[in-house]
Amino acid sequence: MPHDADLPVSRPQTTYVVEHLRTGFIENGAGAGSRLPSIRRLTRELAVGRNTVIEAYEHLVAEGLVHSRPGAGFFVAERARSGQEDTIPVSLADVTSENWRLFEQDDTRLKLGCGWLPDDWREIDDLAHAIRSVTRQSRAGVFDYSPPLGTPALRTLIQQRLRRLGIETHANQILLTGGGSHALDLLVRLLIRPGDTVLVESPGYYNLLGLLRLQRANIIAVPRRADGPDIERLEALLLEHRPSLMFINSVFQNPTGTSLSAPIAHRLLRLAERHDVRIIEDDIYADFQNTPSVRLSELDGLDRVIYVGSFSKSLSCSLRVGFISGQPELIRRLVDVKMLTSISAPHFAEQVLATMLQNGSYRRMMERLRVRLARQMSATLALLRKAGWQIFDAPAGGLFVWTRHPDIESSQRLVAHAATRGIALSPGRVFLPEARDTPWLRINVAYATDARARRFLADPANDRA
Amino acid sequence: MPHDADLPVSRPQTTYVVEHLRTGFIENGAGAGSRLPSIRRLTRELAVGRNTVIEAYEHLVAEGLVHSRPGAGFFVAERARSGQEDTIPVSLADVTSENWRLFEQDDTRLKLGCGWLPDDWREIDDLAHAIRSVTRQSRAGVFDYSPPLGTPALRTLIQQRLRRLGIETHANQILLTGGGSHALDLLVRLLIRPGDTVLVESPGYYNLLGLLRLQRANIIAVPRRADGPDIERLEALLLEHRPSLMFINSVFQNPTGTSLSAPIAHRLLRLAERHDVRIIEDDIYADFQNTPSVRLSELDGLDRVIYVGSFSKSLSCSLRVGFISGQPELIRRLVDVKMLTSISAPHFAEQVLATMLQNGSYRRMMERLRVRLARQMSATLALLRKAGWQIFDAPAGGLFVWTRHPDIESSQRLVAHAATRGIALSPGRVFLPEARDTPWLRINVAYATDARARRFLADPANDRA
Repeated sequence: MPHDADLPVSRPQTTYVVEHLRTGFIENGAGAGSRLPSIRRLTRELAVGRNTVIEAYEHLVAEGLVHSRPGAGFFVAERARSGQEDTIPVSLADVTSENWRLFEQDDTRLKLGCGWLPDDWREIDDLAHAIRSVTRQSRAGVFDYSPPLGTPALRTLIQQRLRRLGIETHANQILLTGGGSHALDLLVRLLIRPGDTVLVESPGYYNLLGLLRLQRANIIAVPRRADGPDIERLEALLLEHRPSLMFINSVFQNPTGTSLSAPIAHRLLRLAERHDVRIIEDDIYADFQNTPSVRLSELDGLDRVIYVGSFSKSLSCSLRVGFISGQPELIRRLVDVKMLTSISAPHFAEQVLATMLQNGSYRRMMERLRVRLARQMSATLALLRKAGWQIFDAPAGGLFVWTRHPDIESSQRLVAHAATRGIALSPGRVFLPEARDTPWLRINVAYATDARARRFLADPANDRA
Repeated sequence: MPHDADLPVSRPQTTYVVEHLRTGFIENGAGAGSRLPSIRRLTRELAVGRNTVIEAYEHLVAEGLVHSRPGAGFFVAERARSGQEDTIPVSLADVTSENWRLFEQDDTRLKLGCGWLPDDWREIDDLAHAIRSVTRQSRAGVFDYSPPLGTPALRTLIQQRLRRLGIETHANQILLTGGGSHALDLLVRLLIRPGDTVLVESPGYYNLLGLLRLQRANIIAVPRRADGPDIERLEALLLEHRPSLMFINSVFQNPTGTSLSAPIAHRLLRLAERHDVRIIEDDIYADFQNTPSVRLSELDGLDRVIYVGSFSKSLSCSLRVGFISGQPELIRRLVDVKMLTSISAPHFAEQVLATMLQNGSYRRMMERLRVRLARQMSATLALLRKAGWQIFDAPAGGLFVWTRHPDIESSQRLVAHAATRGIALSPGRVFLPEARDTPWLRINVAYATDARARRFLADPANDRA
């Protein structure tokens, strides 16, 4: 009879304590047999209720990670099948488990720290129309595998859209994927061998960091500035570490919300050429931008730059479509990886998206969305400034603000305070390759004008709702 | 301006010659500068037209793999960015490129060698009804990420279905994936490190072989018999190679169509226990079976056996849903890999499937499908026997027959002959880990009573249509 180790933890505070113990003690700690903090100590240190701590310990005992000795306290358990743990680096847990809770349907917290649009912002009519139209008109869309590169009509539509960004490519140099993360994953698998050195931005997209850890890459981080990566530091890192690959999020970077400037793009490319580094340009927020700024793929002509785009952030997180564009030989090899690992991407989603690109409903939806997001961005920046938060750099658009409160040195504490007030935040450390605690935090502006968010942002140190 | 290297090759014979050259000479051959066979020689050896060979060479020249010297012939080209090739083992090409052509929409050949149901067998009404119902009733299904484990209602329905196979598990020990290949991929990434030794069946599922090569696993093969793996050979291989993991396709094995017997299942599990090997039981053809036979997961109680199921083969290749069931700690770690590599599986497809499982339309569809497939299987076996084909073992159901013609020693030749007659076959060697040519071939019975297939099977050595 299986035990219930994976039953979701129902309360956000409990999740917080579970993850605090899991990542802070059990997985990175002193190993089997070590004593864990007492209930009293955790209650005080984490500013949560006694019952919350007890519930967290009960969960960990049920999971087999902790055992209790009556009268003596809680201890890290011996793990069954200990060989298994080695197959994923332990540090992976730092960027994973505490974030997945945000994806649960029954999570009623305000998702101020999440990376997607609120459900009530979604417009159903045009999308439902496209779904009905594909279902009626395309047996292939309903039943068949998508071709290896993806639906040809959609690739042509994407090619035309890229041209508007100044990126010239061929429809046969576009490979469709099941979203942006899937695109990054295919590239990671093709281009990175365990032990390879790769450059990322810090702070940067946490899922990418996890993905690189999963592939056992050697991760080197270049600081992200308001106008792109720190070029002086980048040059030094290129000389010292000789990476073969660099990841950059050019526009509305996750988590800082900043965009690459033209001069930095130019200098970055020159450095990449001199040091023979390939660049993966993650541009999944492209459609959130009113007027295109410069892209590396535009300057470089997709020679050493590989472009990643996505519609998952804008259209739907369920009907996921992303894509990669690059040199023909690269795309040919990516087809192998895509087919072996998933046999084509979801055909139905590709056809629904193609329908909406063709009839103009996607364009009109994005126009409305950009207006709404711009209003939220102004309101959020005003809220934050008024309450004394420091802003990394005011973004020109997109979803994210990277911010810190001068009185609070630990975003872990902020996350804990927010949890007691029904708000889900992602701690800043998940965006840092070294996963250390930081005062910085990513705020999703689409959620920031909710009354709960307003109260929290105005007085973040108060941990009683 | 990009060149058109990845433009699809339009004619099947040309594809055949391109792949013959690519895998036989260019990628496994003597390296840059080597002379390639003359047009005359290829025309004779491959029994194809002169124009076909010329077109194939033109394609390879456009792709940059071959250069021609007027009057002297064709030569393997120096490759640009030669470092890139090393990131995927060259042998991968053996099981990939020539198969992807089958997935193209414009491929009008009879897909006698493919692994899925013919489009005109698909029943649209119930599926379209479920799509409309999800679109109307579930904003979450249309817009949101699926939770990390997948839609809870669907996991409960799958749990109930597994119980009917004698497999007891918990809904929280079921992880939904984007199909069976995605499920295998998640397991491969979590459980196999480069250089790890794994056991597969030979012949076996070619995508799995490619996936294992991609992960740089050390692949050891145990011969597949009519009742399962060759147990004596298996024991010797376990002693000699000490693999940590074994893959087995228990029911209607791909490509032999055979099913594991109860005594072999029992002996296999005892060996696995003695040698501490984990088993991944790929059971994606489960719903094609009328009366359940024994599964390893049933005998073992999902302790060392990990179960993989799928609805992609039965319901739709486009709306793909598969799943993994295993120990809670394994599932927890698989969630990390799933979220990092694709952020959830397609929610919409999960909800559509849940609707059809709930209202009984999936069950009724499968009942009709099994009757139809059983008829096809009888007819195909009769056809093959009448024409003198040797059958590996007559399957009790499912899609596949593994067969050879006594007069033809090379299934590569059979593939070439079939191509001239508008029929797509998969050569037997793609199912063998060592990728050597073999007389054996996989036939998909759903396509075998088409007039083109009947003529080909009756007289396979005739290469003129």
